Amino acid sequence: MAVAFGAQPVTAPGWTGRPKTDLALIDCDIHQSAKNPEVLLPYLPRVYQEQVKDQGLRMPGSGYFNVPKRAARTDLPTTPAGVNPGCDADHHDFTKLGDNYEALREAHLDPWNVGKALLTGNTTYGASVIPDPDFAAALCRAFNDWTLEHWAARDDRFIVGLSVSASDPQRAVEEIERLGEHPQVKAVVLGTGARLPYGNRYYHPIWRACAERGLPLVVHPGAEGSGMAGAPTGVGYPTYYIETRMARPQMAMAHAVSFIAEGVFEKYPTLKVLFDECDQFWAVGLMWHMDADWKSLREQTPWVKRLPSEYFVDHIRVGSQPMLEPENDEQFFMMLDAMHAEKTLVYSSDWPHWDWDDPATTFPKLPERLHKRVFAENARELFGL
Amino acid sequence: MAVAFGAQPVTAPGWTGRPKTDLALIDCDIHQSAKNPEVLLPYLPRVYQEQVKDQGLRMPGSGYFNVPKRAARTDLPTTPAGVNPGCDADHHDFTKLGDNYEALREAHLDPWNVGKALLTGNTTYGASVIPDPDFAAALCRAFNDWTLEHWAARDDRFIVGLSVSASDPQRAVEEIERLGEHPQVKAVVLGTGARLPYGNRYYHPIWRACAERGLPLVVHPGAEGSGMAGAPTGVGYPTYYIETRMARPQMAMAHAVSFIAEGVFEKYPTLKVLFDECDQFWAVGLMWHMDADWKSLREQTPWVKRLPSEYFVDHIRVGSQPMLEPENDEQFFMMLDAMHAEKTLVYSSDWPHWDWDDPATTFPKLPERLHKRVFAENARELFGL
Repeated sequence: MAVAFGAQPVTAPGWTGRPKTDLALIDCDIHQSAKNPEVLLPYLPRVYQEQVKDQGLRMPGSGYFNVPKRAARTDLPTTPAGVNPGCDADHHDFTKLGDNYEALREAHLDPWNVGKALLTGNTTYGASVIPDPDFAAALCRAFNDWTLEHWAARDDRFIVGLSVSASDPQRAVEEIERLGEHPQVKAVVLGTGARLPYGNRYYHPIWRACAERGLPLVVHPGAEGSGMAGAPTGVGYPTYYIETRMARPQMAMAHAVSFIAEGVFEKYPTLKVLFDECDQFWAVGLMWHMDADWKSLREQTPWVKRLPSEYFVDHIRVGSQPMLEPENDEQFFMMLDAMHAEKTLVYSSDWPHWDWDDPATTFPKLPERLHKRVFAENARELFGL
Repeated sequence: MAVAFGAQPVTAPGWTGRPKTDLALIDCDIHQSAKNPEVLLPYLPRVYQEQVKDQGLRMPGSGYFNVPKRAARTDLPTTPAGVNPGCDADHHDFTKLGDNYEALREAHLDPWNVGKALLTGNTTYGASVIPDPDFAAALCRAFNDWTLEHWAARDDRFIVGLSVSASDPQRAVEEIERLGEHPQVKAVVLGTGARLPYGNRYYHPIWRACAERGLPLVVHPGAEGSGMAGAPTGVGYPTYYIETRMARPQMAMAHAVSFIAEGVFEKYPTLKVLFDECDQFWAVGLMWHMDADWKSLREQTPWVKRLPSEYFVDHIRVGSQPMLEPENDEQFFMMLDAMHAEKTLVYSSDWPHWDWDDPATTFPKLPERLHKRVFAENARELFGL
């Protein structure tokens, strides 16, 4: 095996430098991408093949500058194939798809003993906020077929989050019915960017389809402030990319509150929701605030029968990337305790994005039991593995 | 003096039952209201008098049900005049304005030894998001004149936050120039509801006018999701009132990030901003997240020269109402520590709203120094008293 460079981080507060050999990690956020539209053509109906050839995937952009694609984390050497997995640029190039997988395997899956890795996509995060719901559904379908054939089939460590579009819930249900029984399909993925908070009854058919099959919903940043999604904050469009990153926890809060206030978890008691890449500690203040207000206002939402924090801890999970960095370990552990991390937190790497977190650098050294919960058991329960 | 019923709370985790005789409190959020349009008529130009007589103040409503106006906190007896100050209904009635002040004085200002109380208004919170900017400015002007004459003039404990409309920054500047030197005017107030995050350069003339006079900006919930403000979350309009309350910290986060990312505190180093009634602990995760991202992304906002948390601690203040309720005191104190409460937190009562916080029930027993910072010194520095 080539040098496992993911195991050689430059900064590593809790780093041991060695994976735990007795624990197969579960990584809840790995991105496979098909940004080159051509790869999806074989999976699309003729009418959309023609449209894509003519005008591309039409995924709406937000206009915010992300990070320089030609830059990369300096602690990540290039792979044997010359592709830097810390740089998003690699998987823009169809010809390097194979290398992309090889880099993932050599740098992350093998050396860190990753037993299961959730493919969350990203090519179709904007599907829900492009105007044509049939085209959006067709793109998701094509992306899912491509994912199963080109990713899931080549490594049984991969589990798949189905891409669906929320712009027609019935179409989303049909896709879950079509592929939800595939042995590697273990979740359904939507972007944070939305026209309505996800607790709204508009979406309930999708949640029912998820709940019936034990598929959790994964909400991942994508398309916020783009297309028909509207402004990515409650006070309009910010100016800079860093502001859009700070808006992610705000959107996670809005969706989480909506799920709870609309009684979704009473209606679908087996439904679970994972917020990936929205940071973590928003969960703490939100639970405290919701609980206090529920005591005064619960007559307005009588279907919310328990403390909101109880629904949160039972039904909502939060991904570890980007893991916030408290000023000291005492604060870190207090926050983990306050968010009930032993139930709510799962490890997510966000591979191969520039700010991905390898398992060694994500946390200070966790107590053994919490380590197992965060790196494996919470996710195993979430995905029914 | 009549019975000081505010001093007899039913639940009081840190309650002493007695005010500190050696510490005059500063309360950063007291609401005076002129919801009956008639009281403002004498202060309006003729054209707007006619419009208001014809169609009222035209403050946009959000359509969310708040709380039953006829309900009230059961631990608050009625005042001698028969008005329950825990119920918003009283100050809808012009004829009871006098009683409203008396209730405030007897229940809150006198017994709790409140030395200064910031009048933050609320009648005009929606001014910034109604279409006509000249009408909006005229309403704010009238409300300020009414406030100075009917509230500030009758009790020198009152300090005043000027109402302005952000829908024409030049008009807002003119109002600050007109009344900013009044000895009781100590702040400028805007609602959280906005068409653009408050760091945007569109608003900078207002911030310059504030900074030049040492007047902090107070951002208070109001008009979010109403009129031209757009959706109150980054994912659209929620369904229930409790969700709009949870959206307040989200909006505070978006505005705070915007101020920092746009370099407002570098441009106007004397500007301070107080977020009232948006809860508190959002500040913790936000500072950690901003600091981490700034290290990676600061090339995109080179005017942000220091760690974002340093701007936060130096320039942003957070009101204590509604004070979040951690699961235990250890968490409470750690959160206060993590948000740097000794600099950032000020006491706000939100009188006379149904969920107002008297000083005794707001906190567990604070250490002497922190008690002084939160209940008096932070606000004294903020308002230059």
